Amino acid sequence: MKILQNKTLTDVSGFQAIGIHSGIKKSGNKDLGIIYSTKPAVAAAAFTTNIVKAAPLQINMENLKISQNTQAIVVNSGNANACTGAEGLNHAHQMTQTVADALGLSSSEVLVASTGIIGVPMPMQVVVPGIKAACELLATGTGASAAEAIMTTDSFVKSITVEVMIDEKPVLISGIAKGSGMIHPNMATMLSFLVTNANISKSLLSETLKDSVSDSYNMISVDGDTSTNDMVIILANGTAGNTLVEKADGNYGKFKEALDFVNKELAKLIAQDGEGATKLIEISLYNAKTQKDAKVCAKSIISSNLVKSAFFGSDANWGRIMCSLGYSGGNFVPEKVDILFKNEKGTIQLVKDGAGIPFSEEQAKEILDQKYVNIVVDLKDGEHGAVAWGCDLSYDYIKINGSYRS
Amino acid sequence: MKILQNKTLTDVSGFQAIGIHSGIKKSGNKDLGIIYSTKPAVAAAAFTTNIVKAAPLQINMENLKISQNTQAIVVNSGNANACTGAEGLNHAHQMTQTVADALGLSSSEVLVASTGIIGVPMPMQVVVPGIKAACELLATGTGASAAEAIMTTDSFVKSITVEVMIDEKPVLISGIAKGSGMIHPNMATMLSFLVTNANISKSLLSETLKDSVSDSYNMISVDGDTSTNDMVIILANGTAGNTLVEKADGNYGKFKEALDFVNKELAKLIAQDGEGATKLIEISLYNAKTQKDAKVCAKSIISSNLVKSAFFGSDANWGRIMCSLGYSGGNFVPEKVDILFKNEKGTIQLVKDGAGIPFSEEQAKEILDQKYVNIVVDLKDGEHGAVAWGCDLSYDYIKINGSYRS
Repeated sequence: MKILQNKTLTDVSGFQAIGIHSGIKKSGNKDLGIIYSTKPAVAAAAFTTNIVKAAPLQINMENLKISQNTQAIVVNSGNANACTGAEGLNHAHQMTQTVADALGLSSSEVLVASTGIIGVPMPMQVVVPGIKAACELLATGTGASAAEAIMTTDSFVKSITVEVMIDEKPVLISGIAKGSGMIHPNMATMLSFLVTNANISKSLLSETLKDSVSDSYNMISVDGDTSTNDMVIILANGTAGNTLVEKADGNYGKFKEALDFVNKELAKLIAQDGEGATKLIEISLYNAKTQKDAKVCAKSIISSNLVKSAFFGSDANWGRIMCSLGYSGGNFVPEKVDILFKNEKGTIQLVKDGAGIPFSEEQAKEILDQKYVNIVVDLKDGEHGAVAWGCDLSYDYIKINGSYRS
Repeated sequence: MKILQNKTLTDVSGFQAIGIHSGIKKSGNKDLGIIYSTKPAVAAAAFTTNIVKAAPLQINMENLKISQNTQAIVVNSGNANACTGAEGLNHAHQMTQTVADALGLSSSEVLVASTGIIGVPMPMQVVVPGIKAACELLATGTGASAAEAIMTTDSFVKSITVEVMIDEKPVLISGIAKGSGMIHPNMATMLSFLVTNANISKSLLSETLKDSVSDSYNMISVDGDTSTNDMVIILANGTAGNTLVEKADGNYGKFKEALDFVNKELAKLIAQDGEGATKLIEISLYNAKTQKDAKVCAKSIISSNLVKSAFFGSDANWGRIMCSLGYSGGNFVPEKVDILFKNEKGTIQLVKDGAGIPFSEEQAKEILDQKYVNIVVDLKDGEHGAVAWGCDLSYDYIKINGSYRS
């Protein structure tokens, strides 16, 4: 598998994409995107477990059941179309129908996603003309503009493309994603859209996506809030020409490895660009008794406001890490825990067998002052591991969320 | 039941209390307190569910089993004596033994509590002389000085005293508590110490405390972090002279009502004084299908960083409240939810049947700009209610926790 630099959605054969400003955002920034497979494609998706589900999610769940073919995704930022009642459902449906009419599809072959403020009616007077204009521009558009169109408080575009050879054919997987607040996915994710030219069955695609999401997007947290609009969608149009992947064989293994890589990279980019974040924190948790213990312990550390505030201040406050492990719900023996901090500036051990050991505050500060810090936690209690990602909690998180309105 | 203004622990018959500066805190602030019943007393306690339990909690659990009589509590701030290994247990035991020697008790008749930084050895060279000095000053001390001695980042003293007549005898319950970070109690609480002159059996005292804690301290959150040192203790010395309360009769009902009131008031004071808080937020959740649904929904709202940030900015962002309800784990029907904001400036409805309704942004801002805001959530789905308390999330939370070290 190799990473393709500077490639995006539209470098995958058979895919077009575009992002435009339709008028939802007052800032004039891009706010509407279309991703389109010119050939028939299968889709898989994962949705938030929040029981308050935005209108687009309800439409998509239905469309994925009705139709075997999925060729387009329409996505807007600036308005979440959540808690908008029956009118919101109509609006979401109208969005898929407008795309379908423009591209010669049935509305059930189109998926829809929204992100932005909750509870405000979608301004259809700009959205409908925007969709029509975007569909006309598709052929000439770039995936990069689509990646821009899904941004809200994101500070940079999140995009990655990889290539893996299957049956000697180059199979590409390319994804775009957006963060960066209300990020604490649970069995689903924030917005992330992936396309691939792999020839793969719908059922296997669905299974592999579910599995991949649980180790990537579900292992990040920015603020502990699981959104009403979380969604990851992958479209696979088979134009790579490989033999259909339909069971867990070697070709599936290659595809899965590449998909996992893409999802984890996008998840890390979201964590790194969490609202107000100044650094990316990676938790490497080793030797838990069960996989579940490993995951809940790792995620509890990255979700703690106190741990995150300490990292903002480059404070080697390992006590807060022990504390967050203790209330995680995971099982472990406190008296066995080791904790280390690691990055390009070196490695420093702070805790051995559950108690603090002397360390250089200067060296710790040097490590913590970097843009990336790896917290290594060894429970020494089993053989299961997990990795989670998050960010620090800064003044800017409050600034963004104490006043941000669209 | 009546509230006794300006009364504290030492106004309850048979109790002495003192707070001094022993030298643990570099600031020179009080850091060591003793609460002492001059007569035999029964005790009940609740402890954190964090599986990383500080040394004092381990000692207390043992002492409460060994001894029917509990006459003293020693508490320090500035050092949590958590994650300190076998040495920490020795230190905690040494603290109870020093009190026991000074007051003529056995060490199992003394409880110990600590709060402050995790993982640093307790400076016994100042703690032991401090305890001896404090015990000598007990007779002349005031409960107010003890309340000061347990403060860390608290900005004001938390204390309340009530009186209830039982068998025509005035029974007093007086409590002191500390917050104000690492506050998200679960089946237990932060530090809270109560004394009463009621004559009540140990087993009934224990049962009523457990029950009272679940509706008070367990319904507040400052930052979602459940501490390693949470503890609430009540001592009852029977000097009021009422007939022994030993079953759930009318006298028990009066005592329970007063105890609930004291615990809820202390819990609210802790929420109000959460690190960096500028306002107290009270969630009144009505008409849930079960008691559990009511509690998890109410607590989820108050624990959301996004809701808390919005309140800091006086932003009527009800979408974040709907979102936090949705991921709470509680069951409800999104399409039935009503949301209102209330306080002395008026009442405003923002959500009806799960969708936003028009409201005056000016009136909402006027309500949200006050020091107290009541969020009323009506699930219209059953008959169970719950109340939870918390605070907003401000720049100062980050300031305190991005640099605070003792």
